Amino acid sequence: MNIPSKYLERAVDQLSSLPGIGKRTALRMALQLLNREVDEIIDFSSAIIELKNNTSKCEICGNISDTQICFICSNLNRDKTIICVVEDIRDVMAIEATQSYNGLYHVLNGVISPMDGIAPSDLNINSLIQRADSKEVKEVIFALSPTMEGDTTNYYLYKKLKNSTILLTTLSRGVAVGTELQYIDGHTLGRSLASRQEFTI
Amino acid sequence: MNIPSKYLERAVDQLSSLPGIGKRTALRMALQLLNREVDEIIDFSSAIIELKNNTSKCEICGNISDTQICFICSNLNRDKTIICVVEDIRDVMAIEATQSYNGLYHVLNGVISPMDGIAPSDLNINSLIQRADSKEVKEVIFALSPTMEGDTTNYYLYKKLKNSTILLTTLSRGVAVGTELQYIDGHTLGRSLASRQEFTI
Repeated sequence: MNIPSKYLERAVDQLSSLPGIGKRTALRMALQLLNREVDEIIDFSSAIIELKNNTSKCEICGNISDTQICFICSNLNRDKTIICVVEDIRDVMAIEATQSYNGLYHVLNGVISPMDGIAPSDLNINSLIQRADSKEVKEVIFALSPTMEGDTTNYYLYKKLKNSTILLTTLSRGVAVGTELQYIDGHTLGRSLASRQEFTI
Repeated sequence: MNIPSKYLERAVDQLSSLPGIGKRTALRMALQLLNREVDEIIDFSSAIIELKNNTSKCEICGNISDTQICFICSNLNRDKTIICVVEDIRDVMAIEATQSYNGLYHVLNGVISPMDGIAPSDLNINSLIQRADSKEVKEVIFALSPTMEGDTTNYYLYKKLKNSTILLTTLSRGVAVGTELQYIDGHTLGRSLASRQEFTI
């Protein structure tokens, strides 16, 4: 692309560094930004800078937070005996949105993936082992994505934690609510048959 | 979405104000930005602010430019007798990329669209009429998109300019290069049959 302004080119380069954004979309974004008022542009830029300056990772669970300890870890009404291990803060948000979990979280900030060069030491795993060592914790739930990398990480965590007296659980695998049986992939269907549950009302 | 940080929420709001970006994509962008170093974040934000502060519209043609007069209008090698009227600076870039035009441009910054509340007075049309008044200009090419709004704008410009001695032309309509005949829409095919050209080698 032959961009007629070096400032526009720089803005396009920066915007196209965002995930999933190519040069053409970045150009469309830059031109839309250019059409805004100066104070709107300053609002936009300062929101990005303040995000970096004013947020940090919760010292206990690794969730993003405006304070040293996140609002979940500091909430006295949460059940401190259960820790739910997730990959990403978006998973915390997804589980919180279900309103069916009242324990704490532990955000690994990724999963073990040798293909992407992510080793256990790159993840927030040591602090999980330390937390699990405390007498308060009774259960650790592995709530990682059911992918190869997620399963590898589950297995690694299991090996690290199996000698403790803590109950180790994982999300149940099975048929998603609302899907039609004929469209479910064979692997999922097979597993949910094998791990069938007693029917209760 | 229940975002655990008000700074993250603000960044997501701002990023989702970009065209084509929803809240989920904005969250993904914000988290990717958050993982960058502070100086990278400052580079990102300053690129947006400097875009607004350091670029302006060329005083002659309305193209985006780092200088008062854009590099096309100030280029002495360009043919100043032809003005190509386009909707957007991206159209200038598209035509420049063909390397088959050496005249000047005039960027309307939109097309007449009563549905979107865009009247002729909202566009960069008066300055086009003034430019066309100069003795130097011999031809005005209407290079607007072949849409209802583009055609309306073409017709409006035609009415404004038809009394001058300037040659008024438009991009040829017809079959796009490389398309298979069976997949061309009937309207385009009908028009390109009606306006068939003598075959030359």
